[in-house]
Amino acid sequence: MAQQKKLVEEITSRDEDFTQWYTDVVIKAGLIAYSNIKGFMVIKPAGYAIWEAIQKHLDARFKATGVENVCMPMMIPESLLNKEKDLVNGFAPEVAWVTEGGQEKLQERMCVRPTSETLFSDFYKDDVHSYRDLPKNYNQWCSVVRWEKETRPFLRSREFLWQEGHTVHASAQEAEARTQQMLNVYADFCAEDLAIPVIKGQKTDKEKFAGAQATYTIEALMHDGRALQSGTSHDFGDNFSKAYGIQFTDKDNTLKYAYQTSWGMSTRIIGAIIMVHGDNSGLVLPPKIAPVQVCVIPVQQRKEGVLEKAQELAAMLKDYRVKVDDSDKSPGYKFAEQEMRGIPLRVEIGPKDIEAGKCVIARRDTGEKTDCPIAELPERVGALLAQMQTDMYERARKHLEEHTYTAATTQEFEQTFAEKTGFVKAMWCGELACEEKIKENYSVTSRCIPFEQEQIAGTCVCCGKPAKKMVYWGKAY
Amino acid sequence: MAQQKKLVEEITSRDEDFTQWYTDVVIKAGLIAYSNIKGFMVIKPAGYAIWEAIQKHLDARFKATGVENVCMPMMIPESLLNKEKDLVNGFAPEVAWVTEGGQEKLQERMCVRPTSETLFSDFYKDDVHSYRDLPKNYNQWCSVVRWEKETRPFLRSREFLWQEGHTVHASAQEAEARTQQMLNVYADFCAEDLAIPVIKGQKTDKEKFAGAQATYTIEALMHDGRALQSGTSHDFGDNFSKAYGIQFTDKDNTLKYAYQTSWGMSTRIIGAIIMVHGDNSGLVLPPKIAPVQVCVIPVQQRKEGVLEKAQELAAMLKDYRVKVDDSDKSPGYKFAEQEMRGIPLRVEIGPKDIEAGKCVIARRDTGEKTDCPIAELPERVGALLAQMQTDMYERARKHLEEHTYTAATTQEFEQTFAEKTGFVKAMWCGELACEEKIKENYSVTSRCIPFEQEQIAGTCVCCGKPAKKMVYWGKAY
Repeated sequence: MAQQKKLVEEITSRDEDFTQWYTDVVIKAGLIAYSNIKGFMVIKPAGYAIWEAIQKHLDARFKATGVENVCMPMMIPESLLNKEKDLVNGFAPEVAWVTEGGQEKLQERMCVRPTSETLFSDFYKDDVHSYRDLPKNYNQWCSVVRWEKETRPFLRSREFLWQEGHTVHASAQEAEARTQQMLNVYADFCAEDLAIPVIKGQKTDKEKFAGAQATYTIEALMHDGRALQSGTSHDFGDNFSKAYGIQFTDKDNTLKYAYQTSWGMSTRIIGAIIMVHGDNSGLVLPPKIAPVQVCVIPVQQRKEGVLEKAQELAAMLKDYRVKVDDSDKSPGYKFAEQEMRGIPLRVEIGPKDIEAGKCVIARRDTGEKTDCPIAELPERVGALLAQMQTDMYERARKHLEEHTYTAATTQEFEQTFAEKTGFVKAMWCGELACEEKIKENYSVTSRCIPFEQEQIAGTCVCCGKPAKKMVYWGKAY
Repeated sequence: MAQQKKLVEEITSRDEDFTQWYTDVVIKAGLIAYSNIKGFMVIKPAGYAIWEAIQKHLDARFKATGVENVCMPMMIPESLLNKEKDLVNGFAPEVAWVTEGGQEKLQERMCVRPTSETLFSDFYKDDVHSYRDLPKNYNQWCSVVRWEKETRPFLRSREFLWQEGHTVHASAQEAEARTQQMLNVYADFCAEDLAIPVIKGQKTDKEKFAGAQATYTIEALMHDGRALQSGTSHDFGDNFSKAYGIQFTDKDNTLKYAYQTSWGMSTRIIGAIIMVHGDNSGLVLPPKIAPVQVCVIPVQQRKEGVLEKAQELAAMLKDYRVKVDDSDKSPGYKFAEQEMRGIPLRVEIGPKDIEAGKCVIARRDTGEKTDCPIAELPERVGALLAQMQTDMYERARKHLEEHTYTAATTQEFEQTFAEKTGFVKAMWCGELACEEKIKENYSVTSRCIPFEQEQIAGTCVCCGKPAKKMVYWGKAY
């Protein structure tokens, strides 16, 4: 058990220093390694397997709504990027420029895509001619580059992996419906697969995406009470379509501009999984997306029949993602490692268990250990995984609820943020000036105007003028 | 049928102009669109779905051999690239350089990865310490950039998608075994999933990968008799490990350099599928990797019950990848489109068929049409898909056999390449000078030194000196 303690003690306590705890988990759970290039990380097998699970679940949800995958070029010529003014202003300061290729200086420099609205628009301009060609619901899984100053693994990096969906429609209504549909896909995915409850809402004009008519967002609350924007969906109306010339002949035989949307979720969501579910023993993975759901650990594995029995148990669990840790490390070390890596269930099997015809199952989230007759193992594992998925969501929901406050007055707003970290629901007049003042005074930003509105007060929490909307405010990652 | 003819007539005949035929298929089957950046293509849904199918099959084969997926940075600092002399000389002339980021000139320029040996080596140097850490069998699916002068969709493009496996081992023997194992994975995948027979062998020193000790290759023969290098596997020995300092403490407690391999297959293989199986009606996809295996086409679909019956047939085929074309195009147009896109089977259903309790099944590869009682449809579809997969492989194997020639003398060699296009098996002394002379004189290159050697003659086909090896020669893409 000395080794087990050692491994666990190496993590900083979550409540002492959340930032350091996060870094410790990311490294010690084997999710990433820092590369020699600032802001570029190496995603290691344990980290990439989580991303593969996310891709699998999310991609299936996309395809169920008629989305098709494509692949766009990774570079954007400067002249193409410049066609949409807002987008240029939004992204130009943070792109990486390719200026030389094949030992020659390029006639026109190209940026590595920070996002691909321009490329999709340029493609749709030539691909869409008639209402019969619409809608097109395309998505791509790729990596993008944004030259961030401050970087943190998964949360903010110069290169990150994501998916970006880009759709084009014949009507504004259809584009708006698709924008909301994809936001719901993200919210359902978070709730059902990642056990993360989110707040759905609209971004203020200040926080919306460059060039968008409306940006919708899902906001999740981390264990430390800070917010993480976890997925966004944008309705562009015909902004891009006019800038890039995407026109089609409609049923009435007139030429019209098309309507577009885009929506994205990135490896950032792995940061959310860590910060919502993780604890002082490391990562805790929701069973549905855990690359390994059950780790069978033989105790006294050199004794005759123990390793064989462990393999036998694994074979009984073939309907689950199961692995036997038959390495020559001590059981204590293996326990600590399985906990660090967040594997939902541990099955322990030793000579005494074999004699008694049972094994021990330990839940990663609660630490609860129960004896289980070997014959009942598959059934119990199935039930425990389902229960753990539900319980993890419920705990996260309760945490969100307990860390969501309301403030009717400026004083309440100030006091809440002075004493607590979490979401504060408060009324807003809709003016940019108030939003900026709140950010300056309390270092919090508007997270979203939630779809589920409440009437907390009649006046703006900042200026006291009549309020238009209730807003979620918080400190964000 | 006018529309059908029109669509088909738009393709150039495969035997008249193979190059133009290829381009026509790539565009008209909806696989790609040209982007506005030279050498960068847009892979459209029909093309990307093929790549997804390839990824799925190949990734499962990798994982069955213990490979784990990771993600490395997309950029390489110049100083890191420069550490391995051969690699620099091989790739430096064709990389794209990022010189500016976030509005500032970078202190050191970085290239967009043309391949990732340097990045993996730099990572392994810090990640591998003991023999207990070995082997590491990592792979990544990503895109790479090589600044090619001449570009063609899939076959040679400035950006392409691929997988690159990079493994590190404790012994030279183990690295060599992994190199050959992965070549066999590629060969089996081509034969069993893509219905493409390949020649397995070793590249000559002239043709091997920059920095490799040995490069193994699978070579496929296209319909026009030209060769396509379809996958390669490299044994680096300890070359990279010495350049990048990958050392580990072995069981005997001494510090040793590790041994490495790398192996890759790219979207180029989609070019092989097109050029091995395609015909004058367009693409022909092997059933195992066809994104859609069966297209149900209703005939006279406005008649009562026809569309419903088509949907019913599709429901009966739920074990296969099936789609109903219920668009308002004419049946003839739909037939031509299904053929152009290479969907293996077409099921036709019209009022008369319904009355007779049957439907018609058409095979894409042979054009053969047979009546099928509706109750027997799933069984027949399963049998036909399996048969088509086998037949496609057999036709390709026969074509390869019939276009593989032997030449014992210089005169035979010259005459064969003057009259035929295909592989020519001939003896070689092993000297670079002869290899270069053959390239100069006949515009053919050594494709590989096949594992299955034959003794065609005793002397080199070029210089007449004693021969060391039999080599496959050919014109390559």
